[in-house]
Amino acid sequence: MKIQTECVPCLLKRIIFEAKLSTDDKTLQTNAIRTACKMLSEIYDPNECSAVIATKVHKMVYDTLNDEDPYAELKIDSNLIAKSLLPKMEALIKKSDDPLKTIMICSIIGNMMDFGIEGASTDPKMLKDIFEKIYSDGLGYDDYPKLKKLLKKAKRVILFTDNCGEIVFDKVLCRELKKFNPNSFITIVVRGKPIISDATLKDVQELNFKEVVDEILTTGCFAIGVDFNSLPPKLERAIKRADLIICKGMANYEAFSETKYRPIAYLLRTKCSAIANSMEISLDVNAIKVYNN
Amino acid sequence: MKIQTECVPCLLKRIIFEAKLSTDDKTLQTNAIRTACKMLSEIYDPNECSAVIATKVHKMVYDTLNDEDPYAELKIDSNLIAKSLLPKMEALIKKSDDPLKTIMICSIIGNMMDFGIEGASTDPKMLKDIFEKIYSDGLGYDDYPKLKKLLKKAKRVILFTDNCGEIVFDKVLCRELKKFNPNSFITIVVRGKPIISDATLKDVQELNFKEVVDEILTTGCFAIGVDFNSLPPKLERAIKRADLIICKGMANYEAFSETKYRPIAYLLRTKCSAIANSMEISLDVNAIKVYNN
Repeated sequence: MKIQTECVPCLLKRIIFEAKLSTDDKTLQTNAIRTACKMLSEIYDPNECSAVIATKVHKMVYDTLNDEDPYAELKIDSNLIAKSLLPKMEALIKKSDDPLKTIMICSIIGNMMDFGIEGASTDPKMLKDIFEKIYSDGLGYDDYPKLKKLLKKAKRVILFTDNCGEIVFDKVLCRELKKFNPNSFITIVVRGKPIISDATLKDVQELNFKEVVDEILTTGCFAIGVDFNSLPPKLERAIKRADLIICKGMANYEAFSETKYRPIAYLLRTKCSAIANSMEISLDVNAIKVYNN
Repeated sequence: MKIQTECVPCLLKRIIFEAKLSTDDKTLQTNAIRTACKMLSEIYDPNECSAVIATKVHKMVYDTLNDEDPYAELKIDSNLIAKSLLPKMEALIKKSDDPLKTIMICSIIGNMMDFGIEGASTDPKMLKDIFEKIYSDGLGYDDYPKLKKLLKKAKRVILFTDNCGEIVFDKVLCRELKKFNPNSFITIVVRGKPIISDATLKDVQELNFKEVVDEILTTGCFAIGVDFNSLPPKLERAIKRADLIICKGMANYEAFSETKYRPIAYLLRTKCSAIANSMEISLDVNAIKVYNN
């Protein structure tokens, strides 16, 4: 997705959020805000991918804050809250006629645990309060039947994860994907370095993803979504060999929507109008959208 | 008021709004956004008044857009919509036990016609739809009794206006102020140059404010609120001689809250949390707050 004008104040909101997470030092916070503004004054370009610009701005801000992981605590909290919701989710799956669809919806709801932007939760605990309401909303855009067909025949599936918190649900999603098609080879991809509240190798190791997937890869670098200019060769091969790419969350959409990889399925909550408009989906809904050509 | 971190994305939202009002040329819009970011990277400083920073950013953006008045049409529309609400307002005043209080509330509701920021209207027409609902809310912060006492004995009252649209109601407010205390000398102040959707000399002349006030002055320059570093001598004298300063809207609060002028009454809608917090008033309410020492 090309960056939209509205992405600029939204990105700055996130920068302010992370500067305050990182430090109480007002001077450092001010430097972070100024740095982000300076970077945007130099690289804001409506012809550039939003993820590419956001990566550069976050990089400069992390350096300014001298903090490799401002969201570290928030990520731990998010995983804890998500874990506490597991029994509820497993019960839903157990009584469901279509467990795969049920876990997909749960995993999309997990995508609401995103911080510092509008349309997302402000506190991990919020998810606990709103889970049932959002679950009853179901899918606001429903390409599940298409996705199911693709999954049925897919020999290789690659799943790009997004935030912590939802990563807990993604493990159950992988388990159900395997149950649905035991012959599929499942690769899961996390961020190569800590960036915003996204899951990294540490999270999938702690959650023991090995139990449910065949391969664990990382994007290899610090990037919002995926940086296609510095793809690790192993990941590049895995993407090319995959019969189906599944992307969780908005950042992966921002990055992959600039590529021609097909078929690709996005599982996300439309938390901002830039992405909702770009995907031609309503704002603030749970969505599965498949692009096949 | 010192600038708050949250003012940065909000100011950028407004800049984007005005760039789009001004031109369909994407390159110009991009230049305006970059210019604003550059300016903020240089002058953002939590020890500086928000109005001072906003003035500098808007000035650079107006220059970049080569547009002296991006809000020109919107201001005309706002005045038209406000005029269409006059009969409703006059009816409310007529049947009121306290016409002055009634018009004050109406004039504060007019302050919702502000554009490009959250908590305000997005379209002048919106005011028509929400007027009655907001009127029934009454005052969320009510220093009207204090203000009434001050008005009773005031020989000189100076009123700083804010947006177009509400300026139509401000004329009725001035009329009622005069009725309430016929011995008071009333000075009204508008912006010296077009800035955002604020009223200028052109508006008060068209609305024939001479009928209801004793003196019409301007801030003399391009400024969000008032620039105390370039006050016209006549205005400076008028402020100093006034027994009471009345300020409409948030921009005047941002500027005057950095001064010691007393007594001062703010009549506004709390459209953002920065100002609501600074004034210790709830967000999204109609407020009259008097500072006397």
